[in-house]
Amino acid sequence: MPRPIALLTDFGLQDAYVGILKGVILSRCPDARFIDLSHAIPPQDICAGALCLASAAPYCPPDTVFLAVVDPGVGSDRRAICLEVAGRLFVGPDNGLLWPAAARLGEVHAFHLDRPEFWLPEPSSTFHGRDIFAPVTAHLARSVAPACVGSPLADPVELSIPEPLRNPDRISGEVIYVDHFGNAITNLRPRDLVGQPLPAVFEVTDQFIFGPANCYIAVQAGLPTIVLGSWGYFEVAIRDGSAALLLGLQRGSPVSVTFPAGRIPVNPG
Amino acid sequence: MPRPIALLTDFGLQDAYVGILKGVILSRCPDARFIDLSHAIPPQDICAGALCLASAAPYCPPDTVFLAVVDPGVGSDRRAICLEVAGRLFVGPDNGLLWPAAARLGEVHAFHLDRPEFWLPEPSSTFHGRDIFAPVTAHLARSVAPACVGSPLADPVELSIPEPLRNPDRISGEVIYVDHFGNAITNLRPRDLVGQPLPAVFEVTDQFIFGPANCYIAVQAGLPTIVLGSWGYFEVAIRDGSAALLLGLQRGSPVSVTFPAGRIPVNPG
Amino acid sequence: MPRPIALLTDFGLQDAYVGILKGVILSRCPDARFIDLSHAIPPQDICAGALCLASAAPYCPPDTVFLAVVDPGVGSDRRAICLEVAGRLFVGPDNGLLWPAAARLGEVHAFHLDRPEFWLPEPSSTFHGRDIFAPVTAHLARSVAPACVGSPLADPVELSIPEPLRNPDRISGEVIYVDHFGNAITNLRPRDLVGQPLPAVFEVTDQFIFGPANCYIAVQAGLPTIVLGSWGYFEVAIRDGSAALLLGLQRGSPVSVTFPAGRIPVNPG
Repeated sequence: MPRPIALLTDFGLQDAYVGILKGVILSRCPDARFIDLSHAIPPQDICAGALCLASAAPYCPPDTVFLAVVDPGVGSDRRAICLEVAGRLFVGPDNGLLWPAAARLGEVHAFHLDRPEFWLPEPSSTFHGRDIFAPVTAHLARSVAPACVGSPLADPVELSIPEPLRNPDRISGEVIYVDHFGNAITNLRPRDLVGQPLPAVFEVTDQFIFGPANCYIAVQAGLPTIVLGSWGYFEVAIRDGSAALLLGLQRGSPVSVTFPAGRIPVNPG
Repeated sequence: MPRPIALLTDFGLQDAYVGILKGVILSRCPDARFIDLSHAIPPQDICAGALCLASAAPYCPPDTVFLAVVDPGVGSDRRAICLEVAGRLFVGPDNGLLWPAAARLGEVHAFHLDRPEFWLPEPSSTFHGRDIFAPVTAHLARSVAPACVGSPLADPVELSIPEPLRNPDRISGEVIYVDHFGNAITNLRPRDLVGQPLPAVFEVTDQFIFGPANCYIAVQAGLPTIVLGSWGYFEVAIRDGSAALLLGLQRGSPVSVTFPAGRIPVNPG
Repeated sequence: MPRPIALLTDFGLQDAYVGILKGVILSRCPDARFIDLSHAIPPQDICAGALCLASAAPYCPPDTVFLAVVDPGVGSDRRAICLEVAGRLFVGPDNGLLWPAAARLGEVHAFHLDRPEFWLPEPSSTFHGRDIFAPVTAHLARSVAPACVGSPLADPVELSIPEPLRNPDRISGEVIYVDHFGNAITNLRPRDLVGQPLPAVFEVTDQFIFGPANCYIAVQAGLPTIVLGSWGYFEVAIRDGSAALLLGLQRGSPVSVTFPAGRIPVNPG
């Protein structure tokens, strides 16, 4: 059985671009198995794609080949790469998209996909997903080694998820992703609360919210809450509603957490 | 070959949540086969999810494991369940979501998923789809018996599709679902017309429509019509247009059918 | 292993209609493999579906069975057909949807799907995708010959992609499709520029754009450009933006190319 293939793109599902990737892969690996992670990354949004990929990669089988394409630089001199880490492979453009998912899994070995004999003949300058990444992925899924399809690469582009600023009585974070439910995922993590009195006070725009709560429905419908989300980050949620919409949150919106001994928040959330 | 797995959620396809479910399942059942029924159930809309699941279940293979997650109560004390009926299995939260699909297929046996050894370790309180339902589904697809993953349960939550009110000369129904094409699916069925003179007269908002017609294009473009839809219910449709949009229909909108001997409708549709 | 099955519909992904197709097929062909090309063809838009199908078909495995349903005439006397060309099979309504994809691949043999023994019993008049096309596709995927499921048909409905008007110093084309990124795909092709001095001048609404460029990022962000897209046609693109939105382009918008010796365009793009 070939290695499973997980796909993440900003292609959308309106056109046949995703289907074309799968057609190219199935033509070379007839028993390929696919996991569609997302094809609705906002167009050209490398950072959102990187976060989405990093959130999902640990839950895919340990021999998965990830094919990710958010590629505003297609056709330029940006490189095509494969990252190998802890048995997993990540294929895509060298623009940081693959980095956060790979780096959190272990030591990364990078390869520059510079062997045209593994591509479609006469690759276009507008659709490397179809012409380069998909056929290379098909070969990798059939257990061709990454060192066969590319040369070692010392300096893949790295992309970091922004870290919060830590002060003794305040940690200043931000929203890094808004999901389908309108939950605003922050870059604050349980380790930021270690040794602090709980509940802490989260400042979200002009609201003060005690947290974290145990689950979305720990508060009344319509009220905001802070929960430890499935990504491993704290997220701002509103029971039976969209926190992003109702609190005006988007990527970059500041969310901070304070531990003011004895201070009573104005709004107990 | 493992049992096929059909998925229905309100996760959307923007984030990687559906992909994570599949990753968790493929990690435990490498040759799993998936049928995506819908991932666009309106967030938290148990009733829409239940209808959609019920419409599709009879057409899936008879050994299918259905994994359905519309779960506003995740992390609370709502139970996780598996329903077994006529060889099929339905896995999800105990909030009525699974009931209409299961109940129409035969006698239902319910199980409370209370065996953490079949879950991911340290399940979160926000994503039971990933941490409980997906790994249990993977085991069930590999033919583990439901009695192994849970204890018998006497009182699963039941949810009913609303029944129309029947009077001698009028049956008062309602719209129960609006589909992608804008067709307004009612809770009126062919059995409601048995023994009555046809065509009947359907009252939809302020329109009187003769029906049922044989197919969508039995009327001119832009005119409303009543057809027996693929769900087994009568639906209000507009040829080459959206009945929901053009007639202002949504879930709960009243649609009634009358059999007024000799009465001539104002608008012959 | 059965033949791979590629799906294209206007069903959307909100309801379970696509899942029902797959359920019906898997019930008859348990190891079916699917390629979803698109389920977001605008409702009833046969022309958009035909273009999308034609763009993807050459990249699918050479033994693929294509099941395409954009079917405003369902339930009328429009025929159900199968086209066979160069080893591939195309199943769907006889309304032109399948024609451009098939015709570009070679000599087409057509069959009228007139053998109810391969359908679901008692087919509805509203969902032939489920009741006729899906079960026939399952049989074809299991290598039943098209001549078994239908009778030879001499006159399938043909649909043509509009050709540009060619004059000595001007070729007048149009936008035939707008994709997810807002790229406006025209019916102008490289052969239209053979023997002409390059760059040519493309007239798009009131803009004059030198082209073609090598890739999307050959111009500064926000500027329009012309590239040879992955469909084999020239497309109007805006770096890091939507050409359709910013230039007001939609299907049918005129795009022409001129070769005015010595003429300097007003706006060099």
